[in-house]
Amino acid sequence: MNSTLPQHIAGYGDVTPFQGSAAYLDRPIPPRVAAPTRRSTPHGSKQRSSLQAAIEACHPFDGMTVSFHHHLRVGDSVVMQTIELLAQMGIKDIRLAASSLTSAHEGLVPYLQNGTVTRIWTSGVRSGLGEAISAGQLATPVVIHSHGGRARAITTGELTIDLAVIAAASADEQGNCTGTVGPSAFGSIGYAQVDAQYARQTIVVSDTIVPYPCVPVSIPQTQIDHVVKVDAIGDVRKIASGSTRITKSPVDLLLARRVADVLHASQAMTPGFNFQLGSGGASLAVAKFLRPYLRDEQLKGGFLLGGIVAEAVALKQEGFFDAIVDVQSFDSAVATSMAEDPHHLEISADTYANPFNGGCMTDLVDICVLSALEVDTDFNVNVITGSQGVIMAASGGHSDTAFGAKLTVVVCPSFRGRVPTLVERVTTCVTPGEDIDLLVTERGICVNPRRPELEARLKAAHLPVVDIHTLKAKVDKLLGVPAPQRFNDRIVGVVQYRDGSVIDVIRQRRGA
Amino acid sequence: MNSTLPQHIAGYGDVTPFQGSAAYLDRPIPPRVAAPTRRSTPHGSKQRSSLQAAIEACHPFDGMTVSFHHHLRVGDSVVMQTIELLAQMGIKDIRLAASSLTSAHEGLVPYLQNGTVTRIWTSGVRSGLGEAISAGQLATPVVIHSHGGRARAITTGELTIDLAVIAAASADEQGNCTGTVGPSAFGSIGYAQVDAQYARQTIVVSDTIVPYPCVPVSIPQTQIDHVVKVDAIGDVRKIASGSTRITKSPVDLLLARRVADVLHASQAMTPGFNFQLGSGGASLAVAKFLRPYLRDEQLKGGFLLGGIVAEAVALKQEGFFDAIVDVQSFDSAVATSMAEDPHHLEISADTYANPFNGGCMTDLVDICVLSALEVDTDFNVNVITGSQGVIMAASGGHSDTAFGAKLTVVVCPSFRGRVPTLVERVTTCVTPGEDIDLLVTERGICVNPRRPELEARLKAAHLPVVDIHTLKAKVDKLLGVPAPQRFNDRIVGVVQYRDGSVIDVIRQRRGA
Repeated sequence: MNSTLPQHIAGYGDVTPFQGSAAYLDRPIPPRVAAPTRRSTPHGSKQRSSLQAAIEACHPFDGMTVSFHHHLRVGDSVVMQTIELLAQMGIKDIRLAASSLTSAHEGLVPYLQNGTVTRIWTSGVRSGLGEAISAGQLATPVVIHSHGGRARAITTGELTIDLAVIAAASADEQGNCTGTVGPSAFGSIGYAQVDAQYARQTIVVSDTIVPYPCVPVSIPQTQIDHVVKVDAIGDVRKIASGSTRITKSPVDLLLARRVADVLHASQAMTPGFNFQLGSGGASLAVAKFLRPYLRDEQLKGGFLLGGIVAEAVALKQEGFFDAIVDVQSFDSAVATSMAEDPHHLEISADTYANPFNGGCMTDLVDICVLSALEVDTDFNVNVITGSQGVIMAASGGHSDTAFGAKLTVVVCPSFRGRVPTLVERVTTCVTPGEDIDLLVTERGICVNPRRPELEARLKAAHLPVVDIHTLKAKVDKLLGVPAPQRFNDRIVGVVQYRDGSVIDVIRQRRGA
Repeated sequence: MNSTLPQHIAGYGDVTPFQGSAAYLDRPIPPRVAAPTRRSTPHGSKQRSSLQAAIEACHPFDGMTVSFHHHLRVGDSVVMQTIELLAQMGIKDIRLAASSLTSAHEGLVPYLQNGTVTRIWTSGVRSGLGEAISAGQLATPVVIHSHGGRARAITTGELTIDLAVIAAASADEQGNCTGTVGPSAFGSIGYAQVDAQYARQTIVVSDTIVPYPCVPVSIPQTQIDHVVKVDAIGDVRKIASGSTRITKSPVDLLLARRVADVLHASQAMTPGFNFQLGSGGASLAVAKFLRPYLRDEQLKGGFLLGGIVAEAVALKQEGFFDAIVDVQSFDSAVATSMAEDPHHLEISADTYANPFNGGCMTDLVDICVLSALEVDTDFNVNVITGSQGVIMAASGGHSDTAFGAKLTVVVCPSFRGRVPTLVERVTTCVTPGEDIDLLVTERGICVNPRRPELEARLKAAHLPVVDIHTLKAKVDKLLGVPAPQRFNDRIVGVVQYRDGSVIDVIRQRRGA
């Protein structure tokens, strides 16, 4: 974490430094921007013969911002189809605004190198693309935002989208579309709901054009300009993989079980409690170990929020929760529940976590369990860079839900492959320690000193509570203190907090 | 119809004269305004102890605009509850922006007289309130808009709402709400969806607060500031009454049957045709007589649009239409279908008929059947004033759907109670004759000269086609030509066309 932030970052602009996660509550809320003007002709057709024809109808230009959602995750093929076409058309200096990027987007690297894409706003970057950006191959710093922060940036006009290309599982000729039904059903299309409303032009891309009207209407025709049938939007079988698949690792399963014990001892599971599980190894697996506690205490929760896994659907169907509130489905199998269960709600990223509206869902969460790449002794969390300083993961809803939840638990092993997870200072701060209440590791549970009552409860339950500095010393003794990372001055990434302030920057690795 | 409009109207402003229903297609679309900034506190409560407490929390002020929906129609009690409270608080010069007003709102008259309400924007005004306004008791001219025109006015900022008070059949503590479930279920809440998005402050009023979350979410919590439980929002049994009840009048039933014959002969009922029936005597009854034709020809339509009656639900359930698209339910019994049938879609007034978006539903209608108070020999239609010039009905979606539909049929008896319906010049023009294709009366069917091919088809089917001037002469011979109405110069109403131009004005009756 950078103790001092620059006042200005080339390729980004002036920096508003992070001043605490609740600081926005005391400041004026910035005004929303107007949704763009659209026009249509009675009985006109929106269908275009190809994605190329649709893009041409939008008159692409150098410097434009093109947005995408990442509901297809590793299975997505629409980002690459679009950027390849734009590159063929000779468009340069594109700002790519994707709700997140995965290993499916490694193919972007050559387009960074040749100036097709010079700016990226995203929640996450992974694999070869992360390595390329960390090595300075993007002309400007990548802007990392949370899911709520992205909705904020779009609705307040900080991030203006010229063209949204929206992958849908089904669409009709007028552009009504959804992710919940069709051969490539992927569930919620919540991120794209914000883009559709605010983008100057919109293209819906689907492998399945259904007779009018497409039901359910996840995005309405009033927000869509062009509709294209393509051979494929990607491979939805790949959605439940990596960080969205429930782990089989014995350590992670042990951690998940311990989190369930901790939640029980914390007394935070009260009737109607709202619950969110973040992506990543152990945290999603908690769903599995919660069941016996809920059953034994005849407890029924309110809603399950977040990236939704099949296990969450099972908990709801077994009656342990009243509702599922779904901005993103972490398993294509979840789509069926959304299509059939009226209490499995599809929500937009705005409703999910935008701090600047009449009440987002993360602000109603009672308990959340989140993962971490690194945690430091101030409980700050890094979920974006690896120990070598390479961008490799995603901010996601981590800071959004950590702020809103009454109890925020971070779960991770104390080290991974002989590299400590618990460090003196996180390489990159994404979520501030003030919003983390508990750190659960295999070697002990650390309680944020801000929550003494929690510490007392866990100790009363004979859970292995340990001071975070003590635990760090133990880990260091085991592994040795890692050599400090060495960075150049060049900033390759800017980490925005959800309110638009800058919480950290990512610098180019020395030697890269 | 006024041949010349004033350039400026006191209490209204400068007049943009109507220049044809398609004129807007050649003009720049005005920009949308931004939705207002809202703020919320994590885990904060939106519940207020009473409607008065909620209104006080909104800091009401003289000159404010307060909006309401009219889904409860004659059964509504929320408008009166609110205005009475505002009057008790001493608030003056209110602009009342209701999607429509009915006989439930006669009680407003004293508030017009004492300056509590000095301006009204609405689609319709009826009974004692219409008489009072026609007699000049409102300080400024009432502005009559169509349903699509209201959405346009709100989304473009012509009509800025300070406070929307939204009656809901169910709501949760965070403001998620719906009209489709609960003891007072009234179906679609589509008009209020626009208000909730654009009003500076919003109050949801319901007799039923349900455990979180309220499902379905017709209006999301992100747009709601305050929630109030009240004893009653009104009496939903009264929704299906007056112009929204299917007639039992023999003449109207004869007319409805004739319309079905005409639609068949017109060859406009092609597979997948989209269909809208307007409110009022004969038009709604057409649903009944369409069935044999659809059955015999094994025809299946696309969607049924509009104010939805129980008969429309029956047609859908019997498989004659693929979908129902519902901005307003004309019978509380319709709510069940909306709650249970995914192909019974709830849409906002913006999606229904706003000409200024990416594609409204009325622009996709193939056939619509509408009623009329008066029709003139240029096919202009009056649906707002009676033959005595008194405001007594509503613009509704009449001009919206007449413009969008490929075939627009107006059905009415040639006279009512010895007062001719077919006149030389309508008292007030709401829908221009250029958008009316056919007039169906008990004495013959008149075809707009713009549609010679239609005339040929009806004649080939041996239907009683008659020139509109010939028919008028017949009616005049029977009843005598009515004495011309006499008006003062004072303008008591301004009739906006859907694009915001002024198509007519209503003047104070002489002697009133």
